[in-house]
Amino acid sequence: MSGIWGNKLKISIFGESHGNAIGITIDGLPGGLEINVDNILREMSRRAPGKSKLSTARKEGDMPEILSGLFEGKTTGTPLCAMIRNNDMHSKDYRELKDLIRPGHADYSGKIKYHGHNDYRGGGHFSGRITAPLVFAGAICKQILEKEKIYIGAHIKRIGNVEDKDFSGINLTKELIENLNSEELPVLIKENEEKMRNEILEAKKDGDSIGGIIECGIIGVKAGIGNPFFDSIESTLAHLLFSVPAVKGVEFGKGFEMSKLRGSECNDEYYYDGDEVKTYSNNNGGILGGISNGMPILFKTVIKPTPSISKEQRSINISEKKNGIITVKGRHDPCIIQRAVPVIESVAAIGLVDLIL
Amino acid sequence: MSGIWGNKLKISIFGESHGNAIGITIDGLPGGLEINVDNILREMSRRAPGKSKLSTARKEGDMPEILSGLFEGKTTGTPLCAMIRNNDMHSKDYRELKDLIRPGHADYSGKIKYHGHNDYRGGGHFSGRITAPLVFAGAICKQILEKEKIYIGAHIKRIGNVEDKDFSGINLTKELIENLNSEELPVLIKENEEKMRNEILEAKKDGDSIGGIIECGIIGVKAGIGNPFFDSIESTLAHLLFSVPAVKGVEFGKGFEMSKLRGSECNDEYYYDGDEVKTYSNNNGGILGGISNGMPILFKTVIKPTPSISKEQRSINISEKKNGIITVKGRHDPCIIQRAVPVIESVAAIGLVDLIL
Amino acid sequence: MSGIWGNKLKISIFGESHGNAIGITIDGLPGGLEINVDNILREMSRRAPGKSKLSTARKEGDMPEILSGLFEGKTTGTPLCAMIRNNDMHSKDYRELKDLIRPGHADYSGKIKYHGHNDYRGGGHFSGRITAPLVFAGAICKQILEKEKIYIGAHIKRIGNVEDKDFSGINLTKELIENLNSEELPVLIKENEEKMRNEILEAKKDGDSIGGIIECGIIGVKAGIGNPFFDSIESTLAHLLFSVPAVKGVEFGKGFEMSKLRGSECNDEYYYDGDEVKTYSNNNGGILGGISNGMPILFKTVIKPTPSISKEQRSINISEKKNGIITVKGRHDPCIIQRAVPVIESVAAIGLVDLIL
Amino acid sequence: MSGIWGNKLKISIFGESHGNAIGITIDGLPGGLEINVDNILREMSRRAPGKSKLSTARKEGDMPEILSGLFEGKTTGTPLCAMIRNNDMHSKDYRELKDLIRPGHADYSGKIKYHGHNDYRGGGHFSGRITAPLVFAGAICKQILEKEKIYIGAHIKRIGNVEDKDFSGINLTKELIENLNSEELPVLIKENEEKMRNEILEAKKDGDSIGGIIECGIIGVKAGIGNPFFDSIESTLAHLLFSVPAVKGVEFGKGFEMSKLRGSECNDEYYYDGDEVKTYSNNNGGILGGISNGMPILFKTVIKPTPSISKEQRSINISEKKNGIITVKGRHDPCIIQRAVPVIESVAAIGLVDLIL
Repeated sequence: MSGIWGNKLKISIFGESHGNAIGITIDGLPGGLEINVDNILREMSRRAPGKSKLSTARKEGDMPEILSGLFEGKTTGTPLCAMIRNNDMHSKDYRELKDLIRPGHADYSGKIKYHGHNDYRGGGHFSGRITAPLVFAGAICKQILEKEKIYIGAHIKRIGNVEDKDFSGINLTKELIENLNSEELPVLIKENEEKMRNEILEAKKDGDSIGGIIECGIIGVKAGIGNPFFDSIESTLAHLLFSVPAVKGVEFGKGFEMSKLRGSECNDEYYYDGDEVKTYSNNNGGILGGISNGMPILFKTVIKPTPSISKEQRSINISEKKNGIITVKGRHDPCIIQRAVPVIESVAAIGLVDLIL
Repeated sequence: MSGIWGNKLKISIFGESHGNAIGITIDGLPGGLEINVDNILREMSRRAPGKSKLSTARKEGDMPEILSGLFEGKTTGTPLCAMIRNNDMHSKDYRELKDLIRPGHADYSGKIKYHGHNDYRGGGHFSGRITAPLVFAGAICKQILEKEKIYIGAHIKRIGNVEDKDFSGINLTKELIENLNSEELPVLIKENEEKMRNEILEAKKDGDSIGGIIECGIIGVKAGIGNPFFDSIESTLAHLLFSVPAVKGVEFGKGFEMSKLRGSECNDEYYYDGDEVKTYSNNNGGILGGISNGMPILFKTVIKPTPSISKEQRSINISEKKNGIITVKGRHDPCIIQRAVPVIESVAAIGLVDLIL
Repeated sequence: MSGIWGNKLKISIFGESHGNAIGITIDGLPGGLEINVDNILREMSRRAPGKSKLSTARKEGDMPEILSGLFEGKTTGTPLCAMIRNNDMHSKDYRELKDLIRPGHADYSGKIKYHGHNDYRGGGHFSGRITAPLVFAGAICKQILEKEKIYIGAHIKRIGNVEDKDFSGINLTKELIENLNSEELPVLIKENEEKMRNEILEAKKDGDSIGGIIECGIIGVKAGIGNPFFDSIESTLAHLLFSVPAVKGVEFGKGFEMSKLRGSECNDEYYYDGDEVKTYSNNNGGILGGISNGMPILFKTVIKPTPSISKEQRSINISEKKNGIITVKGRHDPCIIQRAVPVIESVAAIGLVDLIL
Repeated sequence: MSGIWGNKLKISIFGESHGNAIGITIDGLPGGLEINVDNILREMSRRAPGKSKLSTARKEGDMPEILSGLFEGKTTGTPLCAMIRNNDMHSKDYRELKDLIRPGHADYSGKIKYHGHNDYRGGGHFSGRITAPLVFAGAICKQILEKEKIYIGAHIKRIGNVEDKDFSGINLTKELIENLNSEELPVLIKENEEKMRNEILEAKKDGDSIGGIIECGIIGVKAGIGNPFFDSIESTLAHLLFSVPAVKGVEFGKGFEMSKLRGSECNDEYYYDGDEVKTYSNNNGGILGGISNGMPILFKTVIKPTPSISKEQRSINISEKKNGIITVKGRHDPCIIQRAVPVIESVAAIGLVDLIL
């Protein structure tokens, strides 16, 4: 029961890392939406590995084939399904790991859940590769949002010890978002790019990996979007964000920092800027009572360090029921933050379209 | 579209702070479950205000009437509805605020969303009071979980500058959980109780409020519960947690701290403890790939400082379309963390029952 | 898992015949909708028993109390819950039937399903009384539809051997619908009223009951409403109609008659009537490919004869595990068709609002 | 919003008749289920056209490729997606019909719904071809049911003026079901096969088509499956059945005949057959209160005559806004009842698995 989400938009994902194909079906798209396929491919290439020393050498290609729902360049209004063939798989790399349990991966929990029947090769359905279809869907959703003048951007707030500044301190514009989208390591403080690259390369050198934080900002959302309680913006976005493998935390606005604040410091005071209602600060990340207040929607997600590392780790052999030492072979990402950026933006886009449609 | 949640369990909430009643309908409960009503009332009294100087003086009573689904002390298997009458309301306190917009509240976003038709008195449907039915449902879910030897406890990890230690550093037992459940300010380091009380009373003295963090731990969940992607444990719990008013962040295990960690530090290494599979650490909070691994499930939520404060704040008068100064009268909680503890436990219980049924 | 339905509108019902109360929560209503309560009560009184010799003598009162979601006469946009207290219950009538299994009722299937824990008094959650909240919700939905100039009416197509003519042969107008709504036994051929009354009274005299068919017509639905496949108009309405106790068949347009027709007889040919697209016939009941074509939506439902009859019947005693003879005491309806009419209209209204919102 | 259905099982369909591919994603299948692919292909070939003079000459091939969810011959427990490439398409046949509106088809309602953006070629997403993935899913569900000793069979109850007898009058066994499954025109009265064939060929000769009724029976369903109200067996199955193009009526047990019956004739009286509870008759089709009572589940669906006929029909040209005459060229089925049989069985299997899982 892993693959279906949504209210007005319904998305359904499928696929395993080393199976025939991965993909997504999107239902609920309005008919007649002109789809910019180049734009989709650009978004997907932001997530694709193999582009630099910062990520795994596996070349995914990631060329989606649209199977349905598109006719003469426009959405039909009926379900749109896209499929990505799997290739450049080194299944052999994984075969010997069948009975070994990689720490930090879903190998153990998945094996118990599916009674050993899940496809273990390359992480199977748990693979980060399954996020490629999410980026496909996100790219379409971004095109829907852009028609409403809603733009989504993200920067890397932290990798290891390198910390970037917050969106809340700057003027978040469409131009800035476009600039960030074009960077491999998008940051607000220019020097952080080099520092972050070094953090990653150092981890790589050690056969290790490193975690980080992505901050995402959405501009152009009018006040009055969302709902109280179960379909709040926060619930909707967090549901999707936590479905992205490696996400272990989500906070809106000042988030966990609010625990140290007084109400008088945390409340965002209102004023009229001409006819427009604004707040002096944006500690609540543009959301009150689960509903947008017209300020930029801001949230952060933490991405845990890639669990696949070359370093020796203690683990168990589940068929022999004994303890042992494991080394994860194959090609790994020392850091997936930069590849996760378009995934985070994508699920935010999907969530927002569901709320806005 | 605020009030319905769930897959195998379906819950539906209703009510406004100053309307006739608030309540909840729970569908999907198995038939024949003996319900301990005293136990429910005990859980609800943990959330109820008016018990000490730490919370609002409003006395809710909060006596639920079970309208359906219970017969001869046992669940029937058909929908169980419970209603709580509203009383001790000081609606007059709020009337003059009709056009004023309280910073940090849903007054503005809600007014836009519902085109001014929502019940503004006491926050209406946005009131924290609507969490009382959630505690009712949570108390029933806890009883279901206890039959499976699953126990849920929480402590206050932080209020203002006072920080408690983590569950991950201690042995989380049923006994400890029961002890924590009986405290108004449950903490792991005894001295923190007094310190936190002082933080709250100081904020109160200043006509202000203070935020905090709740850490929740769940023991007894076997490996193999949950799903990858959209119905992951994280997605399920976060969806519910973010539907609780005032929650602005959720993290599992080490959460945002993972951004500073290497994979070799963050991965939880496995070993056999006799026949049982365990991990040396529990940085991932008992969840991998969205599925439980048999270790305690651990998560933290941040609760923002109550937005209702007596201090003067800048705001707008939306009918006159002009800026102004606001003072929120009425009875307020200087801190809601201690009252939020049973709410957080409750939605965790609801989410878990949905995954386990 | 009986009580929740809907996509854009979500309804959640609860209650047992002899419990504290029955009711419904409606989520997804737009805010600011002025509710005509008299109108709701009028609709509910159409379903209420005890009005004539044609139905049970039980007086339900059926006075709903709106617990939430209504403020100053208008919907708030947040969940609207209404509750109806149970009274005038003769629980004693049923007590001795605890172990007897009434043929045609859910006594046996329900007992197995809920392992004997369901409330057996008066049919419990299986009681036709639980349709009163559906009429409440339907009355609100009708008010929403009327703003769109959509009107729903029904007549009794058949009771026993008395058959009325079809809506397809006449001009279905708002006026006709209003006339039908005001009749206890609405028919298109005036003489049928008396004939049907006799059919019912004869069945009553014999201690028996009688079944019938209701035809429902909806005018004013524009072309383009609905969806292909799983959210077709037919799927949506049939799902709701079959959730009404006693409904055992649903057909749209000519329905089962189509099995005898050629395509050339069944197809509805198009023409322009000025700018408006119409069809010469309406065999498809206004729906093609699951989507409205602008013609009246027409469907029929069969209501089985009330299973509660005074006549002796063979049945089993499930606690003694032996065969026996049963006589159902208490007050029964010899015919529920006339009381089912507003229920059928109501679920049609609910379904349509869900598709239109 | 056409393509997603289910509670415990979630299915998501996609595709247009002349697009790249059609397919289905099935989520919620348990892991470790051995899939008999030959069996799936046999079921799919029952639906495939081009086998005899009774159906269209289009050869679909209908060879599904399983893209995910199957590993080493068993289900993984994660979403299973199957795709069928479209081929042997004569798109040219349809091009000239772009602006013509075929009576009885979704051409007009779909065009309005999707503002002219739907893929009109071969009926697009409205094509009966999209039922091929449903048969794929149904074949898997049948395999799940067979492990529970639940078997689904169907016969043609009527084509035109030829009427077969009912399942309720005979002893429905696994052997009979297997025999019926192997026939192109499954009937209970042997002579009806030839008569029905003649009805179809006569319609074909006239450039016309003919409708019919399918009766479906399910044996082996234990008492206690299903729910009252919204998730009743009737609601669940009817929802799916009405999503099959051309289905315009569904009735359970005696269905519409019940309108002529007294309660004493319609009620199914109980008796103990040894330890087993049975009923003397099965007028209610094995379902009471939405829940199975252990007797065979019986229902009938009417399939309207194929709307595509060669005969001249009156219609409109929507771009020129004028009336005209239409002749539908291309290859048509004079009757789809025989091809619909496995589709009806399939959606019944899907619905039942959802209720039983």
